[in-house]
Amino acid sequence: MKIVTFGEIMMRLATPQRLRFSQASQLELTYGGGEANVAVSLCNYGLDAAFVTKLPKNPFGEGAIQNLRGLGVDTSKIARGGERIGIYFLETGASQRASVVVYDRAGSAISGVKAGEFDWNSIFDGASWFHFTGITPALGPDVAAATKEAARAAKEMGLTISCDLNYRKKLWTPAQAQATMSEIMEFVDVAIGNEEDAEKVFGIKAHGTDVSGGQIGHAGYEQVARELAGKFGFQTVAITLRESYSADKNGWSAMLLHENLVLNSRKYELQIVDRVGGGDSFAGGLIYGLATGKSGQDALEFAVAASCLKHSIAGDFNLVSVGEVEALMGGDGSGRVQR
Amino acid sequence: MKIVTFGEIMMRLATPQRLRFSQASQLELTYGGGEANVAVSLCNYGLDAAFVTKLPKNPFGEGAIQNLRGLGVDTSKIARGGERIGIYFLETGASQRASVVVYDRAGSAISGVKAGEFDWNSIFDGASWFHFTGITPALGPDVAAATKEAARAAKEMGLTISCDLNYRKKLWTPAQAQATMSEIMEFVDVAIGNEEDAEKVFGIKAHGTDVSGGQIGHAGYEQVARELAGKFGFQTVAITLRESYSADKNGWSAMLLHENLVLNSRKYELQIVDRVGGGDSFAGGLIYGLATGKSGQDALEFAVAASCLKHSIAGDFNLVSVGEVEALMGGDGSGRVQR
Amino acid sequence: MKIVTFGEIMMRLATPQRLRFSQASQLELTYGGGEANVAVSLCNYGLDAAFVTKLPKNPFGEGAIQNLRGLGVDTSKIARGGERIGIYFLETGASQRASVVVYDRAGSAISGVKAGEFDWNSIFDGASWFHFTGITPALGPDVAAATKEAARAAKEMGLTISCDLNYRKKLWTPAQAQATMSEIMEFVDVAIGNEEDAEKVFGIKAHGTDVSGGQIGHAGYEQVARELAGKFGFQTVAITLRESYSADKNGWSAMLLHENLVLNSRKYELQIVDRVGGGDSFAGGLIYGLATGKSGQDALEFAVAASCLKHSIAGDFNLVSVGEVEALMGGDGSGRVQR
Amino acid sequence: MKIVTFGEIMMRLATPQRLRFSQASQLELTYGGGEANVAVSLCNYGLDAAFVTKLPKNPFGEGAIQNLRGLGVDTSKIARGGERIGIYFLETGASQRASVVVYDRAGSAISGVKAGEFDWNSIFDGASWFHFTGITPALGPDVAAATKEAARAAKEMGLTISCDLNYRKKLWTPAQAQATMSEIMEFVDVAIGNEEDAEKVFGIKAHGTDVSGGQIGHAGYEQVARELAGKFGFQTVAITLRESYSADKNGWSAMLLHENLVLNSRKYELQIVDRVGGGDSFAGGLIYGLATGKSGQDALEFAVAASCLKHSIAGDFNLVSVGEVEALMGGDGSGRVQR
Amino acid sequence: MKIVTFGEIMMRLATPQRLRFSQASQLELTYGGGEANVAVSLCNYGLDAAFVTKLPKNPFGEGAIQNLRGLGVDTSKIARGGERIGIYFLETGASQRASVVVYDRAGSAISGVKAGEFDWNSIFDGASWFHFTGITPALGPDVAAATKEAARAAKEMGLTISCDLNYRKKLWTPAQAQATMSEIMEFVDVAIGNEEDAEKVFGIKAHGTDVSGGQIGHAGYEQVARELAGKFGFQTVAITLRESYSADKNGWSAMLLHENLVLNSRKYELQIVDRVGGGDSFAGGLIYGLATGKSGQDALEFAVAASCLKHSIAGDFNLVSVGEVEALMGGDGSGRVQR
Amino acid sequence: MKIVTFGEIMMRLATPQRLRFSQASQLELTYGGGEANVAVSLCNYGLDAAFVTKLPKNPFGEGAIQNLRGLGVDTSKIARGGERIGIYFLETGASQRASVVVYDRAGSAISGVKAGEFDWNSIFDGASWFHFTGITPALGPDVAAATKEAARAAKEMGLTISCDLNYRKKLWTPAQAQATMSEIMEFVDVAIGNEEDAEKVFGIKAHGTDVSGGQIGHAGYEQVARELAGKFGFQTVAITLRESYSADKNGWSAMLLHENLVLNSRKYELQIVDRVGGGDSFAGGLIYGLATGKSGQDALEFAVAASCLKHSIAGDFNLVSVGEVEALMGGDGSGRVQR
Repeated sequence: MKIVTFGEIMMRLATPQRLRFSQASQLELTYGGGEANVAVSLCNYGLDAAFVTKLPKNPFGEGAIQNLRGLGVDTSKIARGGERIGIYFLETGASQRASVVVYDRAGSAISGVKAGEFDWNSIFDGASWFHFTGITPALGPDVAAATKEAARAAKEMGLTISCDLNYRKKLWTPAQAQATMSEIMEFVDVAIGNEEDAEKVFGIKAHGTDVSGGQIGHAGYEQVARELAGKFGFQTVAITLRESYSADKNGWSAMLLHENLVLNSRKYELQIVDRVGGGDSFAGGLIYGLATGKSGQDALEFAVAASCLKHSIAGDFNLVSVGEVEALMGGDGSGRVQR
Repeated sequence: MKIVTFGEIMMRLATPQRLRFSQASQLELTYGGGEANVAVSLCNYGLDAAFVTKLPKNPFGEGAIQNLRGLGVDTSKIARGGERIGIYFLETGASQRASVVVYDRAGSAISGVKAGEFDWNSIFDGASWFHFTGITPALGPDVAAATKEAARAAKEMGLTISCDLNYRKKLWTPAQAQATMSEIMEFVDVAIGNEEDAEKVFGIKAHGTDVSGGQIGHAGYEQVARELAGKFGFQTVAITLRESYSADKNGWSAMLLHENLVLNSRKYELQIVDRVGGGDSFAGGLIYGLATGKSGQDALEFAVAASCLKHSIAGDFNLVSVGEVEALMGGDGSGRVQR
Repeated sequence: MKIVTFGEIMMRLATPQRLRFSQASQLELTYGGGEANVAVSLCNYGLDAAFVTKLPKNPFGEGAIQNLRGLGVDTSKIARGGERIGIYFLETGASQRASVVVYDRAGSAISGVKAGEFDWNSIFDGASWFHFTGITPALGPDVAAATKEAARAAKEMGLTISCDLNYRKKLWTPAQAQATMSEIMEFVDVAIGNEEDAEKVFGIKAHGTDVSGGQIGHAGYEQVARELAGKFGFQTVAITLRESYSADKNGWSAMLLHENLVLNSRKYELQIVDRVGGGDSFAGGLIYGLATGKSGQDALEFAVAASCLKHSIAGDFNLVSVGEVEALMGGDGSGRVQR
Repeated sequence: MKIVTFGEIMMRLATPQRLRFSQASQLELTYGGGEANVAVSLCNYGLDAAFVTKLPKNPFGEGAIQNLRGLGVDTSKIARGGERIGIYFLETGASQRASVVVYDRAGSAISGVKAGEFDWNSIFDGASWFHFTGITPALGPDVAAATKEAARAAKEMGLTISCDLNYRKKLWTPAQAQATMSEIMEFVDVAIGNEEDAEKVFGIKAHGTDVSGGQIGHAGYEQVARELAGKFGFQTVAITLRESYSADKNGWSAMLLHENLVLNSRKYELQIVDRVGGGDSFAGGLIYGLATGKSGQDALEFAVAASCLKHSIAGDFNLVSVGEVEALMGGDGSGRVQR
Repeated sequence: MKIVTFGEIMMRLATPQRLRFSQASQLELTYGGGEANVAVSLCNYGLDAAFVTKLPKNPFGEGAIQNLRGLGVDTSKIARGGERIGIYFLETGASQRASVVVYDRAGSAISGVKAGEFDWNSIFDGASWFHFTGITPALGPDVAAATKEAARAAKEMGLTISCDLNYRKKLWTPAQAQATMSEIMEFVDVAIGNEEDAEKVFGIKAHGTDVSGGQIGHAGYEQVARELAGKFGFQTVAITLRESYSADKNGWSAMLLHENLVLNSRKYELQIVDRVGGGDSFAGGLIYGLATGKSGQDALEFAVAASCLKHSIAGDFNLVSVGEVEALMGGDGSGRVQR
Repeated sequence: MKIVTFGEIMMRLATPQRLRFSQASQLELTYGGGEANVAVSLCNYGLDAAFVTKLPKNPFGEGAIQNLRGLGVDTSKIARGGERIGIYFLETGASQRASVVVYDRAGSAISGVKAGEFDWNSIFDGASWFHFTGITPALGPDVAAATKEAARAAKEMGLTISCDLNYRKKLWTPAQAQATMSEIMEFVDVAIGNEEDAEKVFGIKAHGTDVSGGQIGHAGYEQVARELAGKFGFQTVAITLRESYSADKNGWSAMLLHENLVLNSRKYELQIVDRVGGGDSFAGGLIYGLATGKSGQDALEFAVAASCLKHSIAGDFNLVSVGEVEALMGGDGSGRVQR
């Protein structure tokens, strides 16, 4: 079982100990990005995952590769070149103070990728699943073209294709997103998002929902999922449901429209260590579940439990095993010491 | 709009990571003090603020100035001399374990200040507001005389004068506080305190309130505010209402007696990172609100929201912008990531 | 009032900041172990406590002694020799992610101790209480023999003897535990445990209790305590009741069967900094209470309040004073700053 | 005495403890840049210095300003706008392993500055000295035009103008440097450089010198200085002489061609803590000396002693006082504790 | 070009900042071991290297693999099982105070390896070089048998075999070493050691050499190399020559007996950051040189320059590239900043 | 063999990593003081040492005691009371930049000690040696009287008395020092100092010596020692000879006038980690040597070797064993790894 993901991995520079940017004299250096995070999750679950991107020939391009390779990700298809690695700065919030992300990704190596630059037939050889997020085409028209090219090749080679919509307002407008993403969606089998994504990317809006107020209506999400599936022919649509009580505490659950059934997951009350990468860890769990033949409900519960655990782990990557996820799915969220 | 504050700034040495004093091999060095904290808040809100104190000619006197000046505070009126800067050691508590503050402020440069040492007419030139706290006169009879001198000068020059009562039992007895503070109160327009302050400084006590038990009666606070206003002619009295559930969790709100109306604020449930400076951040927010012509209710809500955010920030200073405070006032306490 | 404890002290290497093992580039080095932790508690409460163990002649054997001696523990009876100090690695969990302990204690100096190696008559001279835990005999048949020898000597010399059952599944099977422990229980006056201990060590099981689910039935615990007392003639049986909501939050209380009465403690809601050593801090508090002549209820409340505070303190040791425990017993768990 | 400097300030992200980039999980965050470093030196010496640049409206633009303002630099003329602050990553070497700098400065706010964007007449009002380095025009043709514009305005307003040649091979080629710099040199009174600069920027080469081999011929430097002065009409030419024995140990001295005399400084043997900013600290010392009317020899010795001390200080900034520099000039390099 | 190494990798726990063990509250966690260090060097030089060992199925076995794999080492042949990973504690010295290593390796997974446990034919498939050190057979008779088995298989499959003698007095006596090692030497082509190794392992002693006094006689080393080659038929013998002036400063060079010629290297004066792994980095450089067909002198100079750089790098691994080594070989040890 | 020392122990707050005070956001917390440092040395050498002082009843008084007791010092005679513990801030220098100490010791508990406050007969019971430094009487007339009282009692009880002159210019003038110290010297058997001490305290000056220039004349020191012995009847006079080349590098040796012979020690070239406490470590070594009956030359060499090692250790305390000192005395300063 081999999965390929394609996108940007960035240097992540985070203030320690919930300090504000202006207080920090040190920043914690790790790496992360939507599709890389999914690849790491899948390797942790024992699958083979390759991550495709472009990284500069400098110590930080090397650093990203070293990190991924150490965690078992196949990095052999990563192109090298370009001027810089994208950076994002993270200030982790607390209580009513929100986390702040400052992106510094303009001119990153991946943003210079053009269609034709990767040999997708070779990359997808032996693979059964291809995953990307809406961030990748948002990096620019050339990258969008390369993404579409990848999706078409994957489809032709019979891979299942998943896309996490992941709308980023600093990268493009809703109009740009809709125009570009709509073209790629024809290749996608599994769409993952939250209500904001569906609205921003495709103009599909649920009624009676107020995201910043933390109010979520299940009926509205079902409607959104069904509209998405109807419009693009997705076999599966997953929507994560985050209730943001504060920067420290969230409710976390998800729903899945799968084989025309709407499935709802258990809900977890999170005490948050780091919520960046939360959505990616859901995608990683869902892909694992579906790709290994679990039922829709089991795949959904695996994905939600996996991403529940992610929120307790610093950094973008969800460093948990199948056993740990299954223990939580099985009901043990008691946090008792494992001796 | 220029505000002047006068008082002590201390070196703050805090154990990291909620360690007890006996466990710490490192202490985190910052600076803070009631009136300096207010000046920093005001600068963050875009006003001009000058902080007046006396600091020794040594690296730590310099350090305090460097810190304040970096944050935009006018430090040009700070006198230099004396032997030492006061120190306070902070052990941040957790759960049922309370935070511990050990003061080591005897003999600090500011405590040697005498009436006549500062040229208040020059200092207040162009200013519209003067703020001090009850800590300053508590540093000794000479400092008390200097404080009274400052308040009289400010009154004569037409400034609005605010005082945060801030009773400190290690500095003086209630009897001493009452004798000294009563003489200065005649110059004060805006009094800020909590129930303990009113009782300890002026013997004004609310009925049916148990501070350590976390029980707070609104009616009692209204009574205290009205008694204070009646006794000293304050135009405005603000009382902060802290419900201490534990060292990590507090309820936080405030009431304001303003233009003879009693106004009550929204209440926030705090997950605390650092509660030192919480009251000062309220004072900073209130002064900002009143000085910029907000209504009483708006000024109160701004002050409470500002100080709510302070509890999520390490150190004495409230490092937030007007925009961040207003976002919280506007209802977004969800802590969603700001990308 | 002199208390002697006997057992293993280990090097504790913990990841900082709730990192997973695979993320840590630094480990925090302290020392701890069931009986040593009790000795530290007792010294903090002003009693004399000696800790007996065997430690290698290397910097880490020295380190453990330096730590204990600094905290006032009498280390003069510690034997020196053997090859290594046992180690345990700790990864502190968060939210639904459980803490993980990896033991590396095989071949530790204490595990090579044989009966006859310690001069118990000399060690117990002047002492009135002897404490050990079920971990010590679990270290091997020779250590079990030495433990029994110690208990017999203590009994003959008139000391009160307490045992914290502390079942460790990585050290022995329930069958082994029962065979060995049953022989030593005849000397024990005060037994301390939780439901799992009683079941694993003696096969005594409460009905209707699901530990990992966080459901605890008081009636079941009373039954367990009475069965234990009936079987081994314990004068006192204490059972701690932990409700594990998550790795961060627990409910914490205890019950005591004492002079044939069942006493129940107040319950605390814990926001956890470090729960390792929580049970030991209860034992330390209970021994303090009983040894200084408090009533059963007072000793129980002291023990529970003491161990409540422990959960807010990093490391194995409960670094609190009698005054701090009594303040909490007296109802002040508000965490207000102690200035 | 007011000095104005103009150029780029970057975020500096350095590995701690001489780690290689691939080993670091934390980076130390400070700010620095040639002209900002000079401004800081001058403020430390008690002069007024304003630093002119453009910085983005984000937390790191603010951070740079907060840092400079804290150290007393006038930041009121800094323009705000653009997308990002330039970054440089620093890996400090040791022994035979060289330090490595990775620049990530493309697209920085300052690089988008155009002629006409700053009101130089207002900026230079009341100033007597203008300083810039060869890095500023190297940032692009527009910035070069703005630099020339500034130099012309300064000249017209009667300021003394100094330029540290500072050739950066990653920013431009020698041919580009020569074409651009030659046009600006007509306004310059004081040129500062090392032999490599003179060769790379103006093709002026000393004979018999091997920089990487650490061999320096004084006669060659005199020749270079005289050629430079002859070609551009500089009143003063300073050349720093670094003998690189290893990453830890350098010899450090300088020569000055001043009023047509060649002056040689004392030579210091450096044990290096941080050599980035070493040249800037020399420039800062020299400007201080010349601007305050010291003799050429005294200004030179002040500059060399100041920059000697800089090599013992972490970060770009030379945090020393006139008194400390003069103590070293006076012969006390013994490093005895100052109690 | 594929190289296989076989041996132990340990957890390395080092005090930070040259602290003594008794001062450290944190230990820095990395991994290292003679043969693993060589494999890392070879991967850094662009060769394929596989490291064979046995590691427990716990987070630290995983951690070692994650580290090696991140650096490009083929870890697919590592056996999993056993109880623990060996540990070594390192206190880095300074000036006249020596570094101290405390080994805690008894019972490590690798020490339980038996002949027949690894499928050497499969492991060596496609490889051209096999490397091990004298530490591996010293771990016990079973491991010694497995090592011999590996060497025999490698010889039969036509690989070149190198052995770093690496005598460890805490693992065995000279007599034991000699008996065991002599049997394995028949398979070895390239022997690496220092004078102490030759003496301790084979009783071959140079005249007129005082290791702790830092006096090294070249003639003596030539004699030792020739005796070694004569006795065991080595094609190549390398001897590293360390002159220990202090814990911070060493002289470092080596000699090579190759094709019956004695070759002497350039000598480097080291300012030491970390000297653990210094010998391994020499072996890694030598294998690289010889395996890629360099002349004896070039291979020797590469090895010495590579290991010179290692002493400037924290941790066991020599994180340098071929380009960096060749720059130093080419004469640039000036440590000038690489911008 | 029991030794008693009497004096002040302070909280030491040092910047990490050779940062300047203005750069530090953390300070490293340890404890130290002349006489406490000597007591720690003696305990490390296996002798019994009691340290007598007065410390406040707060966490930092406790911290100092916990530290000393952990290292084996008898702290049972320490008086508790007073307001604060003295503090000294340390900025460790590098290269030509000197270390800076800022004292904040006014009002410390020990400075309030009066004659009659300690029961010296009880304290000296069973002791054979009493040690103090010139800092103790310099803390004020009352403490001077208490010191004299202690010295007289020690003399009457037959103890050997040593005094490290330790002149501190911030505590008193030479005239004050001479008047007070002369009175106490009559009880002293062993005087320890450097040339500056002798000159400042007693006006005894060597010819041809320039301390800050690092020039030391042996003949001059012999003259000073003989004058001191002649004037006060000292049996033994030791003078430490520090050659300060830089903050990192010193030469270190000593001379001893003992039984009327002048003895000169070996000289060590130090690479300095921390030189605070260097003189105290010499005193500790000398007392150990003399008190255990070594010859003058052996005691001197032990003292110099011990204090050589101290300079490689962070903090005030000399954490070395007799074995480590003797290894260095025996000639092994090579710093080879001790495995």
